[in-house]
Amino acid sequence: MTSAKHLIALVGFGTVAQGLCQILHEKRHQLLTEYGFDFEIVAVTTRSRGTMYQPQGLSLPSLLKLAQTTAGFTDDLKDWDTKTMVRNSNATVIVELAHTDLQTAEPALSHCRAAFETGKHVVSGNKGPAALAYVEMNKLAAKYGKFFLNEATVLSGTPVFSLVKKTLAGNKIHRIRGILNGATNFILSEMEANATYEQALDAAENLGYLEADKAADIKAYDAQAKLTILANVLLGMPLQLKDVKRSGIDTISNSDIKTAKHQNMRWKLIATLTVQGENIHAEVKPEKLALSDPLAQVMGTQNSITFSTDLLGDVTITGPGAGSIETGYSILSDLLTINTGKLS
Amino acid sequence: MTSAKHLIALVGFGTVAQGLCQILHEKRHQLLTEYGFDFEIVAVTTRSRGTMYQPQGLSLPSLLKLAQTTAGFTDDLKDWDTKTMVRNSNATVIVELAHTDLQTAEPALSHCRAAFETGKHVVSGNKGPAALAYVEMNKLAAKYGKFFLNEATVLSGTPVFSLVKKTLAGNKIHRIRGILNGATNFILSEMEANATYEQALDAAENLGYLEADKAADIKAYDAQAKLTILANVLLGMPLQLKDVKRSGIDTISNSDIKTAKHQNMRWKLIATLTVQGENIHAEVKPEKLALSDPLAQVMGTQNSITFSTDLLGDVTITGPGAGSIETGYSILSDLLTINTGKLS
Repeated sequence: MTSAKHLIALVGFGTVAQGLCQILHEKRHQLLTEYGFDFEIVAVTTRSRGTMYQPQGLSLPSLLKLAQTTAGFTDDLKDWDTKTMVRNSNATVIVELAHTDLQTAEPALSHCRAAFETGKHVVSGNKGPAALAYVEMNKLAAKYGKFFLNEATVLSGTPVFSLVKKTLAGNKIHRIRGILNGATNFILSEMEANATYEQALDAAENLGYLEADKAADIKAYDAQAKLTILANVLLGMPLQLKDVKRSGIDTISNSDIKTAKHQNMRWKLIATLTVQGENIHAEVKPEKLALSDPLAQVMGTQNSITFSTDLLGDVTITGPGAGSIETGYSILSDLLTINTGKLS
Repeated sequence: MTSAKHLIALVGFGTVAQGLCQILHEKRHQLLTEYGFDFEIVAVTTRSRGTMYQPQGLSLPSLLKLAQTTAGFTDDLKDWDTKTMVRNSNATVIVELAHTDLQTAEPALSHCRAAFETGKHVVSGNKGPAALAYVEMNKLAAKYGKFFLNEATVLSGTPVFSLVKKTLAGNKIHRIRGILNGATNFILSEMEANATYEQALDAAENLGYLEADKAADIKAYDAQAKLTILANVLLGMPLQLKDVKRSGIDTISNSDIKTAKHQNMRWKLIATLTVQGENIHAEVKPEKLALSDPLAQVMGTQNSITFSTDLLGDVTITGPGAGSIETGYSILSDLLTINTGKLS
């Protein structure tokens, strides 16, 4: 356990960053006494609100008040763009939570590079860098002796990377199969409860479950990116987005769902990675499952993954796939890993 | 990570010890390179076969051959009873896998005490010490700066203690609810597939799923002990066996199971711990669950636990509840924890 204080800089101040701040504020004492985890938030930067920086640490109660408004930052304001903050602040860890771009992974990728080059760990809740450039980022992190962690990118609130690396340490995994997208799982659940596709989509949008670009969910680009990340992080295989076959839930009609119900079956958007020797098969597609399949019982925004292992056979974990506090916790989970100084 | 070699002494040489030996033999290289885990088995002791001891390390291939027979040990034989071996061997960790006794926890308890007093870690797959004397054992371990670990006692092959302490670190748990006994879950599954209670019981016995004393499974003494251990290890609450209300599956008839099926429901032996402030309610009993309850879909010898947490809501893990390799892995999981030198 390292005894130094972690100085955290947040890139982005949306629901995940705010969830993290709330947890850090409420659990400061518990984290210190139970895990020896000591921290300050030294910087927060957003495109619209500017950059706040306070090398001694910003006030968490003030940050939580700011979260209630959309006003620009005022106190502790600094004339820095994000990259300058990443380079020049005294942060020891950059938490990258800016908008996900699955075409270029920018600007997140530049932030990550700048962080490593200036000796900072990176915790990225942004799927871009891990999905598009995991190998490069991992090498860069190793070169500078820093961590590149991505727990929040898959099964947001449920720490599956930690599960495999720590709790299942010693096992080899030959198949990963799961429900990785909460929004589409919610839509399919609503349709089974007699909503039309359009009604279910509207409900998902109103509840904030959908990505800004709906196609990311509906056409399974999001699940495709997550499966790519799982292969890279957990199997050490340099899978690329284009290697993952993809079809979304927009091909599933209410009548398909009714038919399945009469057959005691249920449609789910299933992501599967199968390893055979040096080869890997990766695919996301809607599948009609028997109700006895454990994944068939994962409803609403829940996510679930079954890991097929050499020593334990199948181990399945089911938990939240979204939420401010839940995803904020995944970031904390990575911060606690950094605090231990080791991955497994 | 400690760099010293772990010198392991096995108390008991049944299926779990043999599963562990097989894993250690096959994964010696992987464990060293990936986890820096270096080891020798220096002693094996059983009541019927005597004590083998070799301070430089016994041959794993020879041990695995011995596992195929019931012959007494010959090579490396030493005129030591178990307690003498525990005290006088050069082992750094005692793996206690002798017969579980839920009345006195002996002789396991004496072995654990002797181990701590002579500066050895204890990994106990035996439920006795953790169910009857967790507080005392934990204090003793702390006094001598050693580990007292019990991963194999609950959800044999699925490391739930590690899941909560490492993967869910930072969460507070207010409810634990699960299927903790594989044998009775198998029997209920068989009865639903039209076996009589007696047929299902015979099948479970023939497949080696039942404890030597069947009442441990059928009358839920086993689940009662596991729930006691969960409260002590994961909630830090000094629950005792007698504090857990208990009723077994022997009250469930084939007609109960048929009726449930017509109602789209299913009987399961459910263990529940609920924390309310300083109070804890603990109970094991058959419950009729809706098929939409995730625990209703856990069939055969699978086990499953749902942890209700403050940050993540419900997180459920499902995995093997028995098996030689699976339970052997749980012992390895504890050994890897000792190797890291820290619990979380």
